Amino acid sequence: MKQKNVVTIGGGTGSFMLLTGLKKYPISLTAIVSMADDGGSTGVLRDELGVLPPGDVRQCLVALSESTEMMRQIMNYRFEDGGLKGYNLGNLFLSALEKIKGSFSSGVMEAAEILNVKGDVIPVTDEDMRLVIRLKNGKILNGEKVLDYNEDIHKIGLEKVCLKKSVKACREAIERIKGAEFIVIGPGDHFGSIIPIFLVGGIAEAIRKSKAKVIYNCNLTNKKGQTTGYDLDQYASEIDKIIGKDRIDFVTFNNTVPKKELVDKYEKLEGGNSLVALNNEKKKRSFRIVRADLVQKIEVNISQKDLYSRKHSFIRHDSTKLAKVLMMIMELGEYENIIKEVI
Amino acid sequence: MKQKNVVTIGGGTGSFMLLTGLKKYPISLTAIVSMADDGGSTGVLRDELGVLPPGDVRQCLVALSESTEMMRQIMNYRFEDGGLKGYNLGNLFLSALEKIKGSFSSGVMEAAEILNVKGDVIPVTDEDMRLVIRLKNGKILNGEKVLDYNEDIHKIGLEKVCLKKSVKACREAIERIKGAEFIVIGPGDHFGSIIPIFLVGGIAEAIRKSKAKVIYNCNLTNKKGQTTGYDLDQYASEIDKIIGKDRIDFVTFNNTVPKKELVDKYEKLEGGNSLVALNNEKKKRSFRIVRADLVQKIEVNISQKDLYSRKHSFIRHDSTKLAKVLMMIMELGEYENIIKEVI
Repeated sequence: MKQKNVVTIGGGTGSFMLLTGLKKYPISLTAIVSMADDGGSTGVLRDELGVLPPGDVRQCLVALSESTEMMRQIMNYRFEDGGLKGYNLGNLFLSALEKIKGSFSSGVMEAAEILNVKGDVIPVTDEDMRLVIRLKNGKILNGEKVLDYNEDIHKIGLEKVCLKKSVKACREAIERIKGAEFIVIGPGDHFGSIIPIFLVGGIAEAIRKSKAKVIYNCNLTNKKGQTTGYDLDQYASEIDKIIGKDRIDFVTFNNTVPKKELVDKYEKLEGGNSLVALNNEKKKRSFRIVRADLVQKIEVNISQKDLYSRKHSFIRHDSTKLAKVLMMIMELGEYENIIKEVI
Repeated sequence: MKQKNVVTIGGGTGSFMLLTGLKKYPISLTAIVSMADDGGSTGVLRDELGVLPPGDVRQCLVALSESTEMMRQIMNYRFEDGGLKGYNLGNLFLSALEKIKGSFSSGVMEAAEILNVKGDVIPVTDEDMRLVIRLKNGKILNGEKVLDYNEDIHKIGLEKVCLKKSVKACREAIERIKGAEFIVIGPGDHFGSIIPIFLVGGIAEAIRKSKAKVIYNCNLTNKKGQTTGYDLDQYASEIDKIIGKDRIDFVTFNNTVPKKELVDKYEKLEGGNSLVALNNEKKKRSFRIVRADLVQKIEVNISQKDLYSRKHSFIRHDSTKLAKVLMMIMELGEYENIIKEVI
């Protein structure tokens, strides 16, 4: 039986979680990955070596790798001392491959072979993509990295992101979107990862024209100053707007509310970030909402240093739950009765 | 048919050449590798990360790897820009593995698996081995790296090398020497790689007690101030002396003299280094000398940046020729008539 062509669109941590869940299913997976990152050790590599940002792609490769657990550990290893402090070995590996092969995307193909990757990981562009952030008072900030934490953004609020100069999508990314039966967007940093992908020349048009069903995994939480007060509809409508057509068919939305003390603690620790709400009053939508329990059950331990928690909150998607719901949506005819709620 | 157990003893470039040749033969290979290096990017890693020197081991792993040519290129890739300039990716990989696995030798075992290595690569020690160099005027210099080029060594001359503090051999290195049928020493930097291995606690004793035939590949050239004026006998006798017994059974020696203009150019470019001589007058030796054409035919191109020429001369062993002669020695009964000359 022919496997479904599923294209995911997103950034590092969100895609890592999504792909970790989806790769257990017999589908043909292509991850199209944001190339907007310019912070941390990835940012240093961009500046020092003149390479493209490897961090997001690395996480997708590791998620889809069928190599040993050791190989995955190596790819995620981060040096802790001296002049190498903060450098991630997998990122160095991808940057070296970019230099050896002459382009980032061919380096990624080589890495995928070495890491025995199930599916394909495709950087959205092979060009040097740089974000410009416009605040509500007209002030301009440069670089994706300012989104991580910036007082002006917190106080004044973000208005929009655009690219410093326009870049073109990798041909292969466009081809995969054309051939997709399902396109799965997010979860991921709304202005840092998701929106930037649609700014890359050719991507929005390809999605407008594609015949794929489009599923959007709505984030669990809002980011202060960036998406303060956003509800599901605002996220989805901004994505449809940047695509240029109401293309989203389904939105997955978390149905379970974490304990109040967890939410309170979260809002305090995360500098005012809050849960995404769903406006139950709204009746007319161009998409269906699939509500389900999508949250990872974890102990509250903000000191842990794993992949997720480095820069991210401890209210997270559970990769198994999300993948199960996505597979149900993809087989909707068959599974409709199992989905908890479709509104 | 049981394969012969062959143990090689040496350092990076010499061992790389030796193993590249030997791995084509159906023998069971173990490379015991010097851990004295503290120069270049390896030295920086030792200082910054507190790891053991990965460079020599990396070259042996690459030599014995049956991975793709691409994987070998990646392991040898050296960054050329910014703060990472000079760092070798394979060295970073081994240092990360040392950190992940908790010891250098277990990291090397893991790397050997990933790189699909034929045979075994064993660091001579898992302890922090540091060289101390004593000059003929009593002056003390620290670190293997001073041997690369040091004016005092050139002018005053090296008297001996010893260890800053004693270190013990890896148990596995001792075991392999015990089980060896042939031990092949060198070629390699006499005071930088070869002699230091025998300073590691347990190695000399194991070789004294072993029943293996011992073959020593005499260097092609002398290093000014270090081995100025050495002939074959002086190299061999210093090694026998540090082993503590006349253990060398065979010495391979290059029979062909490079063109005079090449030798002259070489001596000039290499700061006075010269070819190793053989004293034909000497009649009594505790070993046999196997003379053969062992030199690599290459164009004189001192700007090339490959593995060999980085720090090394362009009068080099040819890996295929040397391996062939070694295999002949190991099968002496069978091949005696083929060896060009045994004196």
